[in-house]
Amino acid sequence: MGANMARRLKETGHRVSAVYDVRRDSAKALAQELGCSAPESLKEVTASADVILTVVTDNAAMRGIFAPEGDSLLIGAAGKFFINCATVSPSIHLEVSAACDAVGASALEACMASSITQARNGTLYLMVGGSENVFLSLESILKDLSSTIQRFGGIGEAAKVKALVNMVMNINTAALAEGLGLGAAMGLDLQMLKIVFAQTGANSRVLETDGDDMIAREHDCYFSAAHAAKDSGIANELAVEAGVPVPLSHATELQYRRLISLGLGELDKSGIAELTFPGRTV
Amino acid sequence: MGANMARRLKETGHRVSAVYDVRRDSAKALAQELGCSAPESLKEVTASADVILTVVTDNAAMRGIFAPEGDSLLIGAAGKFFINCATVSPSIHLEVSAACDAVGASALEACMASSITQARNGTLYLMVGGSENVFLSLESILKDLSSTIQRFGGIGEAAKVKALVNMVMNINTAALAEGLGLGAAMGLDLQMLKIVFAQTGANSRVLETDGDDMIAREHDCYFSAAHAAKDSGIANELAVEAGVPVPLSHATELQYRRLISLGLGELDKSGIAELTFPGRTV
Repeated sequence: MGANMARRLKETGHRVSAVYDVRRDSAKALAQELGCSAPESLKEVTASADVILTVVTDNAAMRGIFAPEGDSLLIGAAGKFFINCATVSPSIHLEVSAACDAVGASALEACMASSITQARNGTLYLMVGGSENVFLSLESILKDLSSTIQRFGGIGEAAKVKALVNMVMNINTAALAEGLGLGAAMGLDLQMLKIVFAQTGANSRVLETDGDDMIAREHDCYFSAAHAAKDSGIANELAVEAGVPVPLSHATELQYRRLISLGLGELDKSGIAELTFPGRTV
Repeated sequence: MGANMARRLKETGHRVSAVYDVRRDSAKALAQELGCSAPESLKEVTASADVILTVVTDNAAMRGIFAPEGDSLLIGAAGKFFINCATVSPSIHLEVSAACDAVGASALEACMASSITQARNGTLYLMVGGSENVFLSLESILKDLSSTIQRFGGIGEAAKVKALVNMVMNINTAALAEGLGLGAAMGLDLQMLKIVFAQTGANSRVLETDGDDMIAREHDCYFSAAHAAKDSGIANELAVEAGVPVPLSHATELQYRRLISLGLGELDKSGIAELTFPGRTV
């Protein structure tokens, strides 16, 4: 995601001064492509730009790059702006925002409900949380990355919405895998079944995006099963905190964790069909 | 459903000679409205028409009306046609079809993926299974009841598809209830959340049909929670027979059964939100 966002920003006339990745080789290759630096430390990233976009894997990685000690984006960060795009828990956004405030920097959350292709084309669906002043300072960058910007309240609010979007999307994906997998097991014509689903109460966005992939076992990764497990997990933690029973979301997280345990976590989320189609992993 | 189908058939020029319901009062009132008889026995229903449409509650009721002994639609049924519209197990359709064959009658399954309003307006979505000859004999009636007819193979095939449609629809409904309920618990603007769901991977047909009802607690019944439990149960039995794991569909059936146990089985399927919104039943 981050690489494609950097490509898009360069293409739309922004100066991309540095890129960073825990996989050094990836960062160096991208830096060469974009004609920018690939610093070895996070503090150099902060030093090289006014606005720093972050897209990390999970809560732990987010805490890591904004660590209070050691190498950190927070070093020398006074006056800098951070746009944090990863899907992490709302509470992590609050933590990071407070840490930024403490050193005189500003944080904005910009959660993405889209994937790699949309990042490359600047057609991301962005859900933004944070103060209006910070948002206005960063709006031109956000617009060049996105086709839609939905603003919510303060820091953490967009992450709540993002968690719910992925929670429901993941459940619907698991549902589709059960429906098509059972249809396959009963010998039904799956293209016909897809048509009927599309015309009835079984229709969903994931039917459009993942139905054919489930049938054809085309699980090239746009949004990995491992990320799906992580995101459903974030929603499930929020549900525990809120005292809301979410048995389907729990069952969905377990299915995705089962994929990971089978070594299939890097398949696309459509790979969940590997658990429900006869003669695959079952 | 049956009453509205009878109204529609009369309106489109068919002669409706008799109506039957286990609730005698309902049958009598409808008979008066339509100017037809309301026989006390099933064998009189069969005697009064060439084509008999059935819409029952569940597998047991279906076996009951086609019983081999006692009062039954099968008595005097030689040469008659039965159009069986209820959502029951594929194996029940096979049983009933064989019983019809044995007495010289013909059965067609015509499963409905629509609700009361569509029955009244003749815009049902019908999934048909059975022999081509029987289908052609009944096509004019089916066309007057429906806007779409999808034909599958022999008897039992349409019921498989119908079971999958309702299985996936019910899971997506339970998913939506979890997403909106957790959103409510976290204090989000639910209309905003619905808009985001509709624009992202969380979109689904049930978001359109049930989203507002869940928020407003408008659970007037189009498709009851009790029926949803029954239909998910049919799919789950098929999954056991096929050896396909369907943990989400199991969790969904349990949620609907929980609604029934709370005395809320006659709410619309959107009533599942009563289990996930704060301050309702949780």
